[in-house]
Amino acid sequence: MKRCKMRVGMVGGGGPASFFGAPHRRAILMDNSAELTAGALRSRADESLASADELFFTRGYPDWSSLVEAESALPDDQRIDYLTIVTPNDAHFGPAEAAAQAGIAVLCEKPLTTNLDEARRLHATVKAAEIPFIVAHTYTGYPMVMLARELVRDGRIGEIRKVEAWYPQGWLASRREEEGNKQASWRTDPAQAGASGCGGDIGSHAYEFVRFVAGLRAVKLSARMKSIVPGRALDDDFTVLAELNNGAIATITASQITIGAQNDNGFRIIGTAGTLSWRHTHFDQLEFFEADHTVQIYRAGADYRYMPASIKPYLRLPQGHPEGFHEALANLHRTLEWTIRRRRGEDAPTPYDHPGIGDGLAVMAFLDAAVASAADHGAWVDVLRAGSTTGRNEP
Amino acid sequence: MKRCKMRVGMVGGGGPASFFGAPHRRAILMDNSAELTAGALRSRADESLASADELFFTRGYPDWSSLVEAESALPDDQRIDYLTIVTPNDAHFGPAEAAAQAGIAVLCEKPLTTNLDEARRLHATVKAAEIPFIVAHTYTGYPMVMLARELVRDGRIGEIRKVEAWYPQGWLASRREEEGNKQASWRTDPAQAGASGCGGDIGSHAYEFVRFVAGLRAVKLSARMKSIVPGRALDDDFTVLAELNNGAIATITASQITIGAQNDNGFRIIGTAGTLSWRHTHFDQLEFFEADHTVQIYRAGADYRYMPASIKPYLRLPQGHPEGFHEALANLHRTLEWTIRRRRGEDAPTPYDHPGIGDGLAVMAFLDAAVASAADHGAWVDVLRAGSTTGRNEP
Amino acid sequence: MKRCKMRVGMVGGGGPASFFGAPHRRAILMDNSAELTAGALRSRADESLASADELFFTRGYPDWSSLVEAESALPDDQRIDYLTIVTPNDAHFGPAEAAAQAGIAVLCEKPLTTNLDEARRLHATVKAAEIPFIVAHTYTGYPMVMLARELVRDGRIGEIRKVEAWYPQGWLASRREEEGNKQASWRTDPAQAGASGCGGDIGSHAYEFVRFVAGLRAVKLSARMKSIVPGRALDDDFTVLAELNNGAIATITASQITIGAQNDNGFRIIGTAGTLSWRHTHFDQLEFFEADHTVQIYRAGADYRYMPASIKPYLRLPQGHPEGFHEALANLHRTLEWTIRRRRGEDAPTPYDHPGIGDGLAVMAFLDAAVASAADHGAWVDVLRAGSTTGRNEP
Amino acid sequence: MKRCKMRVGMVGGGGPASFFGAPHRRAILMDNSAELTAGALRSRADESLASADELFFTRGYPDWSSLVEAESALPDDQRIDYLTIVTPNDAHFGPAEAAAQAGIAVLCEKPLTTNLDEARRLHATVKAAEIPFIVAHTYTGYPMVMLARELVRDGRIGEIRKVEAWYPQGWLASRREEEGNKQASWRTDPAQAGASGCGGDIGSHAYEFVRFVAGLRAVKLSARMKSIVPGRALDDDFTVLAELNNGAIATITASQITIGAQNDNGFRIIGTAGTLSWRHTHFDQLEFFEADHTVQIYRAGADYRYMPASIKPYLRLPQGHPEGFHEALANLHRTLEWTIRRRRGEDAPTPYDHPGIGDGLAVMAFLDAAVASAADHGAWVDVLRAGSTTGRNEP
Repeated sequence: MKRCKMRVGMVGGGGPASFFGAPHRRAILMDNSAELTAGALRSRADESLASADELFFTRGYPDWSSLVEAESALPDDQRIDYLTIVTPNDAHFGPAEAAAQAGIAVLCEKPLTTNLDEARRLHATVKAAEIPFIVAHTYTGYPMVMLARELVRDGRIGEIRKVEAWYPQGWLASRREEEGNKQASWRTDPAQAGASGCGGDIGSHAYEFVRFVAGLRAVKLSARMKSIVPGRALDDDFTVLAELNNGAIATITASQITIGAQNDNGFRIIGTAGTLSWRHTHFDQLEFFEADHTVQIYRAGADYRYMPASIKPYLRLPQGHPEGFHEALANLHRTLEWTIRRRRGEDAPTPYDHPGIGDGLAVMAFLDAAVASAADHGAWVDVLRAGSTTGRNEP
Repeated sequence: MKRCKMRVGMVGGGGPASFFGAPHRRAILMDNSAELTAGALRSRADESLASADELFFTRGYPDWSSLVEAESALPDDQRIDYLTIVTPNDAHFGPAEAAAQAGIAVLCEKPLTTNLDEARRLHATVKAAEIPFIVAHTYTGYPMVMLARELVRDGRIGEIRKVEAWYPQGWLASRREEEGNKQASWRTDPAQAGASGCGGDIGSHAYEFVRFVAGLRAVKLSARMKSIVPGRALDDDFTVLAELNNGAIATITASQITIGAQNDNGFRIIGTAGTLSWRHTHFDQLEFFEADHTVQIYRAGADYRYMPASIKPYLRLPQGHPEGFHEALANLHRTLEWTIRRRRGEDAPTPYDHPGIGDGLAVMAFLDAAVASAADHGAWVDVLRAGSTTGRNEP
Repeated sequence: MKRCKMRVGMVGGGGPASFFGAPHRRAILMDNSAELTAGALRSRADESLASADELFFTRGYPDWSSLVEAESALPDDQRIDYLTIVTPNDAHFGPAEAAAQAGIAVLCEKPLTTNLDEARRLHATVKAAEIPFIVAHTYTGYPMVMLARELVRDGRIGEIRKVEAWYPQGWLASRREEEGNKQASWRTDPAQAGASGCGGDIGSHAYEFVRFVAGLRAVKLSARMKSIVPGRALDDDFTVLAELNNGAIATITASQITIGAQNDNGFRIIGTAGTLSWRHTHFDQLEFFEADHTVQIYRAGADYRYMPASIKPYLRLPQGHPEGFHEALANLHRTLEWTIRRRRGEDAPTPYDHPGIGDGLAVMAFLDAAVASAADHGAWVDVLRAGSTTGRNEP
Repeated sequence: MKRCKMRVGMVGGGGPASFFGAPHRRAILMDNSAELTAGALRSRADESLASADELFFTRGYPDWSSLVEAESALPDDQRIDYLTIVTPNDAHFGPAEAAAQAGIAVLCEKPLTTNLDEARRLHATVKAAEIPFIVAHTYTGYPMVMLARELVRDGRIGEIRKVEAWYPQGWLASRREEEGNKQASWRTDPAQAGASGCGGDIGSHAYEFVRFVAGLRAVKLSARMKSIVPGRALDDDFTVLAELNNGAIATITASQITIGAQNDNGFRIIGTAGTLSWRHTHFDQLEFFEADHTVQIYRAGADYRYMPASIKPYLRLPQGHPEGFHEALANLHRTLEWTIRRRRGEDAPTPYDHPGIGDGLAVMAFLDAAVASAADHGAWVDVLRAGSTTGRNEP
């Protein structure tokens, strides 16, 4: 029997000022394995319907609640397979919770919610509903980031002693939020972004490197959060020192005022036997250092023998053909797709262990502790664990 | 009235060993503006039909001639808008000519044909049919390559004195064609590849940089073509010295035996006032040198003020989000799409002047001269001009 | 009248395990403007004399005190012009104080002393004696670091908001001090190195970037110092967050356990109008970023018009001829030489404002505060100012 | 008995417009093992004497012939040990021949002479006199270039198939020779430079990479030499295709009109088992590529275990301390010094096989063939072998 395309829903991402709607649609469509089925893409009902039509969604809805309600009522072979949530932070919780309660899988933008309480509630709902759930830490979709994780797990760098993760940007070095830049205005507004601006928006990605790549988590932290641009309510510079669960230390930094930095995130993971380093500006390389040795550079390419079987299905092209941001994002959709297909008995490659609801909650716990520490002049604060679970993919 | 998706046909690219079918499908689909309408994707009729079905083409055909015939017979609002040809070199001419004769636009892989005679005939047919025609010199789809071209045209480097264009690879350093590698076997077979292996496959890209970016063409050349790997019938190393139409000189080199090189193509264009340099390994940068000045690095990003209006529509993401090979290829489809839409009166951005049938023929004339020169120990040979036309997009 | 070579004395640096003696001798000799006049190069008297003889010093001494005593007694035109001190940290104070009291200029390795009290005393002595005094923060001798300072002073990056300075190394990732490595053993011994290992040895260089390049100083700091390698008495990882005197923030980090890092120090200085970034691994480049602009890369070379007149005399070669570590060190000797020559009325270029006794003391105050903060779990600690003086070159 | 410093003589390099005199003096002095003994540094006798005095030479001479004559008459323990020749090309032959005839060792700038006849005569004289002789192909003094040679000799890249060597510069992109630039005027004057400008000045370095690193030599070549800047008598752009003695091919290119290029020389050596690549812009790295492997980067540093014993004595500093152009040049002096010391029975490390008189002649034969080929529209021309000798260090 012929295999069907994934039926994908989307909430948000339809307006002219939207940034992430289009990349997600490209990620969904590019592999010829999914279609845009149901959309509630804008805040106003009429615009939402018009946008879904214009963007070739099979079905448009006036808002996310009617989308979830109507899709839930459809038979299995028509209903959306998963819902992509690309709204500002304060509008993640609603559709995510509703989808989970309706048993619909979710791919949600980060950070999970605007506060830890919502994150806990959503985590509980998702766990109870047993739905697949991916949080869009897009950088974890780069094959070389996945390779770094595999090399760590294989013990290539020994015991981890220190993790450095960073994410500088420069686009908020001036008050873009007052120039009508929608992306800037919601990200600098506590009501829409949550208690941390820079930390929530991009410090979250840096911290996820600690979890996803190093396989560790912060147990205590000391944070400095600054609003460097005058008149800004939220932090635009974010520095965290952390102690990790294995006794290692970490620095997790992010900034939005580093003129010239684009999305220059990356990490360096330092072990007793070696160091791994990755930078987004050279996304298709991974540097590996051992003492008294040549530097070894892994390069991307589906055809390299050194590429683990767990990663090969996530590379579309042989070496020398750069796959960038869209493909990294598409890899998260791919993981969700393969998870869903396998749950329903279809043949699909093993999905990679990309960030899920546990990571989403853990990042919120990290941000919550950072905000508390920064408010107390950098006092060391415990990072709460929301449950009794274990493993990276749990908080 | 709602705008329709482009209806795209494809010839070739359906088999398990196909390399370029999938990238073209991603390029077609990713922008949510086109659909896979008609496919004749494999050599055997049954496999061709099965492949089209499996890959979600609306209509499958047993072969390209029935595809062109059947599609031509359909009404305007159902017929494919253009045909993508991704077969080996020896199977470009047939479907391209047929499509042109049927008035169907074409996006064809390079090199245009396997010999200059076919190229001339195809050129004449396409010109007579007045159809849009794009040759898939994918690297010209990178925005920073387009930017280099714009800076040249703006006179930023003055008069061009020298062009260096290169394309080393290493994947054919051993006899991969004897290991069952289909990509290797047709590329090293004169019957399928034409009279030049390395030159035709990738030297052609290097030469197109001379035409597309520098806006010049070779009038005389001296070539050295070598089959370095024992037992190989075609060249796997290709070196051309050329004199260009403005009196400048050029070196155009390619190799398939440079172990470690991936698709490390690039160019350096040297003028009286400055130098521009681009390398595929750093595809989202463009280096600009002026005497006694800081080096200036242009970086990709739709939001940069320095990005010309002619290029901005070809950038999907703001700075810091790398768009790679698929997007470069998608940009060629985009140019064809916009050309078609504007011809039928739809609103679309101005298409960029990407390589067309004239470039396709010019590259074949270049290869023809190179083969003749190499056979004569590097004698200087005139590069024939097939017509009386002028301008880059003409031979 | 013919100008004489500088007569240079040296304390330390003569033994087979010495690291920095030879580089200083190369720095002294390479410009053909100075000679090795007086040496007390090793701890044992006989070895000290033998070493001076073997290394072509004009006069050998059994120890630094007899060197200072005997040289002081010589007439002006025979006495050493300055004394280079290249002993371990705990043996800086003695000869430096003695030289100062004898009116002899000093070039001293960093950090100035092993504790703040000694540093204060030495500072007072040097100030009272009014002798020229250079602290060997070698990286400030690189012309591109000097250029960064000039661009900051010219206001090219506007008001400074943040300074990042770093210095990771990997050579102490294992217990080299137990393998008979003399460089490792004294650096990890509190008696010889002082209260901070990593911080004193290389964090000091990172902090000096804040002072020398950014022209700022820490007023408060929070420090984390770790002994990561088991059994090590001193820190081998050092992280400081600081508030600077203009309200900007800084991160100052150093590590000796980052396998693969060599002397990968550098800085990024972020202002309201731009960012400057320098890395020792690309020592002859300086990156300058402005919003919405090309990245600008300054390259080294005496012949560049953009090179300020204050720096040109510190470049020996035109562009394209890399001058490395020895030349950077030689530039500090050059500054001292030119200072001395001008004080005695000779013609010499204006010496650059390289780190002096004030910087030496300021770095010690910084380290003292860091040790106190780290001992108090990263509490914010004021960085004491030793005097009432102003300006960078003062504490 | 105490070992003496080398006594070094110098011809040329004393005037204010001299470029290479000062670097050679730094190279001679920096290692504290040699002194400036005898100088005939300028063309006019009075200036020559004044310059030697000012530059602290022990003895000054009015011209090179009196220098050679007088030094030859001195007793062994006073006479210069070797003569450094840093004059323009047309003034190499005279002092080199005279020194050889007097039994004095020579370190001579490249190219050896202005024509092949002189080169042959000098070669014969030097061989007959059995003196040590070094030609200043400075780039062969970089330890990573030496390492590349060792890796080739160890068979790490298998059989060599292709050598690419290049040397672009940009400083002669305009008529600097008319702006009073002495370096430009003699280099563009056939009388002083010889029959090739760009080829002789820097193409010679590129070709020496073929000999020194790859251990091969050109047997046939086809050359294109262009005077791109109007009004220039000599080539400022130089392209050679060559067939090497093992059947491999080579491209050897140089240019003086590549605006933005500094001394961006380098090479890529492609074998059956791997590729080695070095670029002067990253002089302390060496890239090694094997098929289906990580890229391996060798970094400089005396302390790396992978550094062969033959190279370690040529590294002055441990990893992370860049040694640049002066040290590379000093390494050639070092080789000459150690050769001389060992010949007289002193203890010294084994000197490395740096370019000697045979290379000097071979480069001249290469240039001679290139000029002939270029004059004949790139005809393939045999590269003459001047003698019956074998091995790299022979023509």
